[in-house]
Amino acid sequence: MESSKIVRKITCKAAVAYGPGESLVIEEIVVDPPQKMEVRIKILFTSICHTDLGAWQGRNEAQKAYPRILGHEASGVVESVGEGVTDLKAGDHVIPIFNGECGHCVYCKSENTNLCGKFRVNPFKSVMVNDGKCRFSTKDGKPIFHFLNTSTFSEYTVLDSACVVKIDPKAPLNRMALLSCCISTGVGAVWNTAKVKPGSSVAVFGLGAVGLAVVEGARAVGASKIIGIDVNPDKLAKGQKIGLTDFINPKLIDKPVHEKVKDVIEGGVDYSFECAGNLDVLREAFLSSHDGWGLTVVLGVHPSPRLLPLHPMELFDGRKIVASTFGDFKGKSQLPDFAKQCMDGVVKLDEFISHELPFEKINDAFQLLIEGKSLRCLLHL
Amino acid sequence: MESSKIVRKITCKAAVAYGPGESLVIEEIVVDPPQKMEVRIKILFTSICHTDLGAWQGRNEAQKAYPRILGHEASGVVESVGEGVTDLKAGDHVIPIFNGECGHCVYCKSENTNLCGKFRVNPFKSVMVNDGKCRFSTKDGKPIFHFLNTSTFSEYTVLDSACVVKIDPKAPLNRMALLSCCISTGVGAVWNTAKVKPGSSVAVFGLGAVGLAVVEGARAVGASKIIGIDVNPDKLAKGQKIGLTDFINPKLIDKPVHEKVKDVIEGGVDYSFECAGNLDVLREAFLSSHDGWGLTVVLGVHPSPRLLPLHPMELFDGRKIVASTFGDFKGKSQLPDFAKQCMDGVVKLDEFISHELPFEKINDAFQLLIEGKSLRCLLHL
Ligand SMILES: NC(=O)c1ccc[n+]([C@@H]2O[C@H](COP(=O)([O-])OP(=O)(O)OC[C@H]3O[C@@H](n4cnc5c(N)ncnc54)[C@H](O)[C@@H]3O)[C@@H](O)[C@H]2O)c1
Ligand SMILES: NC(=O)c1ccc[n+]([C@@H]2O[C@H](COP(=O)([O-])OP(=O)(O)OC[C@H]3O[C@@H](n4cnc5c(N)ncnc54)[C@H](O)[C@@H]3O)[C@@H](O)[C@H]2O)c1
Ligand SMILES: [Zn+2]
Ligand SMILES: [Zn+2]
Ligand SMILES: [Zn+2]
Ligand SMILES: [Zn+2]
Repeated sequence: MESSKIVRKITCKAAVAYGPGESLVIEEIVVDPPQKMEVRIKILFTSICHTDLGAWQGRNEAQKAYPRILGHEASGVVESVGEGVTDLKAGDHVIPIFNGECGHCVYCKSENTNLCGKFRVNPFKSVMVNDGKCRFSTKDGKPIFHFLNTSTFSEYTVLDSACVVKIDPKAPLNRMALLSCCISTGVGAVWNTAKVKPGSSVAVFGLGAVGLAVVEGARAVGASKIIGIDVNPDKLAKGQKIGLTDFINPKLIDKPVHEKVKDVIEGGVDYSFECAGNLDVLREAFLSSHDGWGLTVVLGVHPSPRLLPLHPMELFDGRKIVASTFGDFKGKSQLPDFAKQCMDGVVKLDEFISHELPFEKINDAFQLLIEGKSLRCLLHL
Repeated sequence: MESSKIVRKITCKAAVAYGPGESLVIEEIVVDPPQKMEVRIKILFTSICHTDLGAWQGRNEAQKAYPRILGHEASGVVESVGEGVTDLKAGDHVIPIFNGECGHCVYCKSENTNLCGKFRVNPFKSVMVNDGKCRFSTKDGKPIFHFLNTSTFSEYTVLDSACVVKIDPKAPLNRMALLSCCISTGVGAVWNTAKVKPGSSVAVFGLGAVGLAVVEGARAVGASKIIGIDVNPDKLAKGQKIGLTDFINPKLIDKPVHEKVKDVIEGGVDYSFECAGNLDVLREAFLSSHDGWGLTVVLGVHPSPRLLPLHPMELFDGRKIVASTFGDFKGKSQLPDFAKQCMDGVVKLDEFISHELPFEKINDAFQLLIEGKSLRCLLHL
């Protein structure tokens, strides 16, 4: 029976990171067959999230593992499945999720978290859970490390089945890639983490794809005020298209942002979202929320060693702060329905793809993100 | 009509603080009549909370205002009311609340906070809102400052009517004093702030009257595990009487408290409560809660200038932290019913009064609290 499976190694193209900040190298690599409870998928579209950028820049020492295949926002088709995988089969349309869901651990069984005990997001993990090994190798046999449970900058990748979500084959894969990260993260932070109520007020700090997905989620849910904050003036027009009612450029004002927010809405906003990955911004987001009931949701990744810039007594003003991973979506159970909502236009995806390029141009796509020119550049494999 | 009211100054005994850490002086003072929307009450019982202790020790520069009458945990009877007060009259049995409720500001009208816009707790306030003046003075006419909206270490005190709660005259005033602070704070943190569910697990850091009120609230609600943590070994026996299932003395273990908590309950507790007013304890409380869904409620007052000892990325483990003022009770609207629940034995009060002394012995009562010998010493006026 073992032997009846004809699942072979695949040789394909991937973009390999060899060191922090070094251009990715497009080269032929070897991808092993999926092992027990693993899935090998053919990536059709992938895009670049700021989290890839952070890892590529190697800002965090503990994260350095080279050579490595980055990438976690993508869509594709199942090529083959390993032993024991019953919910997926070759040909299924899928999106990888960096924050997996095994479905039967104490966390997966709890209604209160989407952090699976075994497959939750882990930026320090670089090998497969099964055997601590890599499924990628260079043509001369050197292992290539994995990233964020996904490693989507490759024509083929191997994931734990807990990190692969099957979606409606009618869903357009060139848009569904966004559900792998930015859209689910931003919209979910509004719907699941903050549970923003219609008519309430929202401030969004950092208008990248994640921040703008927060704007989209807030618009969809009927927020009455959606204030965007970004140091990049180009974000105003984009933000307005999606649903911003107000825009603040911190560089163009002569007082702290939270005071400006309170000029727009007395007392501050009901909900603020930090999507810039900057601790000073986080503090402004916190202070922009209304005392008594304001909630700040942290989405940005904070590589700085600095502690939370809040004094404990400030919590007594009744402001709350929580973080949100993958928008508190339980990926395998909830994303198929969420994908349908996106297909139905409840959440609009088109504005988020600002550029499209062939996979080979991935370094240009990184550059667009670094320069603040792109939201998501969709790479075609 | 104005002139028909015969409300005079009263001369009575009070315990006056003249400087940080100096013994309180029992002396005759003068108490002005209540002004518009104010109430003068005769205090019958008062006790000492750690917050009085902190203010007495003058740990916070900005709080120094002398001479001053401290105290905020008490019960008494209305002596007279000022213009416009309609919900209270002479003879009503009342408890003062340091966190007032005006009933008609945007905060009081919100379901999500008990922090009134005008009368919320404010440790820096030392005069009446009406005119920025004091209602107390020394026999030679020097003003004596107020404390925490209440100043109960006096036979008579003047409060804003927003800070006076009328309770059932059948309720025993010698127990109801505890509802002024420790019982409402601790039980409310469990019931209102954390909304602890039956069967869940709880860790309480610091087993003073506030921490033990958390234990009592958790017991009343049917928590399955209630772990108490205190450096004072005497707290074990007391804690067990109230409802502790486990006790940890940080001084007697050779690993961090949060690891010990996880020996008792795998993964950590559902809820942890910080009632010690110490930032290292706060961090242990945070780490003792279960990742994914654990909630830490901060009750302790933290005079240290140190920031929250948490890294922002630690929030991504799904632990939450909030502070709770006065147990999130809206004092005027909710305390009368809560007092009834206490009378009915839903919450048991007897264990919390460890000592009783005449008012004149107030300095001894401070000493008992400092030495960790008392929970609450009830002073009889
Ligand atoms: N929590 C999660 O599950 C999750 C998922 C995806 C991404 N992230 C994180 O979310 C953050 C945003 O990701 P993205 O892909 O949208 O990034 P991005 O680079 O596209 O967007 C960041 C935006 O923040 C703005 N910005 C930078 N500094 C600012 C400042 N001081 N004030 C205001 N705005 C400022 C930039 O101009 C930019 O528009 C990153 O930290 C990323 O790692 C978290
Ligand atoms: N949030 C509110 O509304 C509110 C209301 C009342 C009191 N408080 C605050 O709550 C705290 C407790 O008040 P209280 O009157 O119960 O005080 P308390 O002095 O009676 O009790 C404090 C307890 O903490 C213990 N403790 C001290 N250091 C410790 C450590 N390192 N580890 C473990 N235990 C330790 C002490 O032994 C003592 O049992 C104070 O900070 C007080 O100011 C807050
Ligand atoms: Zn991402
Ligand atoms: Zn799981
Ligand atoms: Zn108190
Ligand atoms: Zn009010």
